[in-house]
Amino acid sequence: MTDTDTGTFDRDTRYISDRITTDVPPGSAPVGAKVGEMTWPVEAGRYHLAGARACPWAHRAIIARALMGLDDVISLGLAGPTHDEHSWTFDLDPGGKDPVLGIERLQEAYFNRVPDYPLGITVPAMVDIPTVAVVTNDFDQLSIDLATQWGAFANEDAPELYADAQRDEIEAINARVYPDLNNGVYQAGFATSQSAYDDAYQRVFATLAWLEEHLANRRYLVGDSITLADIRLYATLVRFDPVYHGHFKCNRQTISSMPVLSAYLRDLYQTPGFGDTTDIDQIKEHYYVVHTNVNPTQIVPHGPELSWLMAPHGREDLP
Amino acid sequence: MTDTDTGTFDRDTRYISDRITTDVPPGSAPVGAKVGEMTWPVEAGRYHLAGARACPWAHRAIIARALMGLDDVISLGLAGPTHDEHSWTFDLDPGGKDPVLGIERLQEAYFNRVPDYPLGITVPAMVDIPTVAVVTNDFDQLSIDLATQWGAFANEDAPELYADAQRDEIEAINARVYPDLNNGVYQAGFATSQSAYDDAYQRVFATLAWLEEHLANRRYLVGDSITLADIRLYATLVRFDPVYHGHFKCNRQTISSMPVLSAYLRDLYQTPGFGDTTDIDQIKEHYYVVHTNVNPTQIVPHGPELSWLMAPHGREDLP
Repeated sequence: MTDTDTGTFDRDTRYISDRITTDVPPGSAPVGAKVGEMTWPVEAGRYHLAGARACPWAHRAIIARALMGLDDVISLGLAGPTHDEHSWTFDLDPGGKDPVLGIERLQEAYFNRVPDYPLGITVPAMVDIPTVAVVTNDFDQLSIDLATQWGAFANEDAPELYADAQRDEIEAINARVYPDLNNGVYQAGFATSQSAYDDAYQRVFATLAWLEEHLANRRYLVGDSITLADIRLYATLVRFDPVYHGHFKCNRQTISSMPVLSAYLRDLYQTPGFGDTTDIDQIKEHYYVVHTNVNPTQIVPHGPELSWLMAPHGREDLP
Repeated sequence: MTDTDTGTFDRDTRYISDRITTDVPPGSAPVGAKVGEMTWPVEAGRYHLAGARACPWAHRAIIARALMGLDDVISLGLAGPTHDEHSWTFDLDPGGKDPVLGIERLQEAYFNRVPDYPLGITVPAMVDIPTVAVVTNDFDQLSIDLATQWGAFANEDAPELYADAQRDEIEAINARVYPDLNNGVYQAGFATSQSAYDDAYQRVFATLAWLEEHLANRRYLVGDSITLADIRLYATLVRFDPVYHGHFKCNRQTISSMPVLSAYLRDLYQTPGFGDTTDIDQIKEHYYVVHTNVNPTQIVPHGPELSWLMAPHGREDLP
């Protein structure tokens, strides 16, 4: 929602913040007194990750699931790129129903958990398949738990996305990248006052300039392999040129014009789990059609040319 | 106006198409029976060119006047970048009045010529100073007449902008550049159907690709010096990255990413009469504030970075 006095977009971060952890034995009922503070067991085949190709917050969880190799353990449902003001819908599925949950609108899984759930129907949402009820839609904790609690089911060669020794460094980066870039682009695009836009724009490009420097001599944000910090950044970077640059007016320059960040983005894009979970057409359709407050004509741009995402990146030898 | 069936923007090209030519002796009253078909004398100090830094159609006439060296012969009035639905206004001038015409709204000069003038109040408009009445707002003929009828007052070293021997070639280029690029960007931006946008987008980028090739081995569009063809193209190219790319969704690529066209644009921008008549801030403010059908928030983007316009262009040695 956007503050009517300042014109600043404030993200509603009230979520159903249950967790799925190894603290609870498989097969158990969830533990805890209250929706939003309960803990569910790690269990193969029990959960369905409801996402959408369009949404950057869902994209993080989808990438984490892919990198961990959990495709056969947690099923994936994908809502279409556009939705009405009430709910994401499974309009891309045969018959317009998610084949695992059997529902048309994600809202139904929210209502199954909290009747008349009054907040936003967001993705990602982890859904308990037996009850078709949302377990959690806390996008950040959900990805952290995917990275840390499902090791028993993960591929042997899965990267350590959130190792104990790296958490502080990952969260230190997040403390800047989340407010000023991941969410900063939304604050630029949804601003209803020039000053709120100006402030967000400056933070977005100061953060990109800092990242351009930070990544000049290292392949990944933290340590020498992919972590959750890279996943969080990727979901924003890959949407930047096709959407945030024009639609959200973050137009000082494109990622393609930044040598280090464009090579970093190409490197990730060409890594399994990243480019193959990215659908630029759905991304563009989502933003340009859903945000009628920004784009009343709902025309979806053809551009930009993005073939450079598959060009060589030359970052293999960086530490 | 945009056709409600097809979603295609059609420019209203009904103008007051009087001309100012050497056929009529200086000091004469205009000759002809009917507004729109009359001829006025070439006469120093008689006319005021009403323009606006923002408008590409006015920009052509302003550049032609500058290249011809007519600053002391035809005075220049500049309306501010934004206006209401009825008229451009002289809100940048002291007291909000054009100092030569003594009017606040350009509409008054239209009404002095045609009471209750029912069509768009557009710039450029050449205004007869004694009667404060519009002589012509036919942007294309007006520039041609500036280039061809005012030679007696022009600088000795003024380029031949529309030489007899080059007219066919200049108009052959215009036959593509006007509909598919100068006006094509508007058809992309004002489209209210996806198919009308798609069609315009394809024409815009096909034309830019053709120009990128055409200008690879020659410095100017026609012959070996600047002509009206270059002026017509420049007014669109210099607005492309800051406005048409994002606001009008012409976002396959920027001019800055096209090696030949960006060097050609830099070459012209650095030529007196071009860059010094270009005001990027006013251009951005105009489009982003006036077109609430495209940009309802009226937020004006900060970007893009345009310092490259002053970088070396390396085209001095082209034929």
